Amino acid sequence: MEKVIIGKSFMRVSAAIITGALVNDKPNYLTIGACGAMSIDPTIVYISVNKAHYTNAGIKENGYFSLNLPSKDLVKKTDYIGIVSGKDTDKSTVFKAFYGSVKKAPMAEECPINMLCKVVNIIDLPRNEVFIGEIIETYINKDYIVNGKPDFKKINPLVLAGSNYWELGEILGKTYTDGKALIQSK
Amino acid sequence: MEKVIIGKSFMRVSAAIITGALVNDKPNYLTIGACGAMSIDPTIVYISVNKAHYTNAGIKENGYFSLNLPSKDLVKKTDYIGIVSGKDTDKSTVFKAFYGSVKKAPMAEECPINMLCKVVNIIDLPRNEVFIGEIIETYINKDYIVNGKPDFKKINPLVLAGSNYWELGEILGKTYTDGKALIQSK
Repeated sequence: MEKVIIGKSFMRVSAAIITGALVNDKPNYLTIGACGAMSIDPTIVYISVNKAHYTNAGIKENGYFSLNLPSKDLVKKTDYIGIVSGKDTDKSTVFKAFYGSVKKAPMAEECPINMLCKVVNIIDLPRNEVFIGEIIETYINKDYIVNGKPDFKKINPLVLAGSNYWELGEILGKTYTDGKALIQSK
Repeated sequence: MEKVIIGKSFMRVSAAIITGALVNDKPNYLTIGACGAMSIDPTIVYISVNKAHYTNAGIKENGYFSLNLPSKDLVKKTDYIGIVSGKDTDKSTVFKAFYGSVKKAPMAEECPINMLCKVVNIIDLPRNEVFIGEIIETYINKDYIVNGKPDFKKINPLVLAGSNYWELGEILGKTYTDGKALIQSK
């Protein structure tokens, strides 16, 4: 099939993630797509936040941030959180804040998954600060654990692709499993 | 709703991405979930690769890697690429390799999206190497551009969540748009 170059853009397919931080001692939330895993044991993750955002100072002051996975019913709130700035809009009541063992970053109770992260490094890029964090505690709504595992159909996370929020669709296969068929056929 | 702690795990929802690299002068491919954006203009991305992998030496030797987004029809190959190691299995022919302007990393023609990345930094973690790269060229199958934009329904990327590959489902909303309704209602 014919290929064409479309600039140097990153074709993102990722979770929409709501970052929680205390800024000037009040909960603040910001929607981001730039988040991912870097290692397990310890679990190291990152978020990249444009320097223009209100959130950055709070993360640096407290040394903690949270990651919250919103579900399908939170599309409008998720988008709103990404549009308005804490500089001029109080976002502290958009979600009910709860805290884990370290009271340094709020988590959003309405989101089915919440991860509390301690900052371990900051990468300074021209436009962004990349906060590298270690996950201290991961929370999940109790009813969303099925057979001992998180059920992503119930969690129903928002996926970012292009300029849209998407729902997860059908399960297509199982990781570290379906590819074995190609080994045997060699 | 009642929350419970489930360790310190990262609840990943991300694209399944196939990394391409030249290792010992041959194309090699590896499926990863640890990939994301860090900034735009320049477009900075990262991949995190466990040090046990065959790919790492090739990325370091050549200074380039590629990111390839597989689509629905490539579930088995994507999983296979993540199960078998280039140390003992030749994966060079699993995909048809093509090259961009810099012949330092192969891209997988069968994948509808391909991004060529130049390594700009490496973060050394205990188990993983985090390759930070700048995207040099982004390729897309010509037919998947609709009204000047990538059409993610046509691209049909594989999403990783839990231990499954998922299809994108329904569009739930538009970014930087749907949240405006909550601003007006204040």
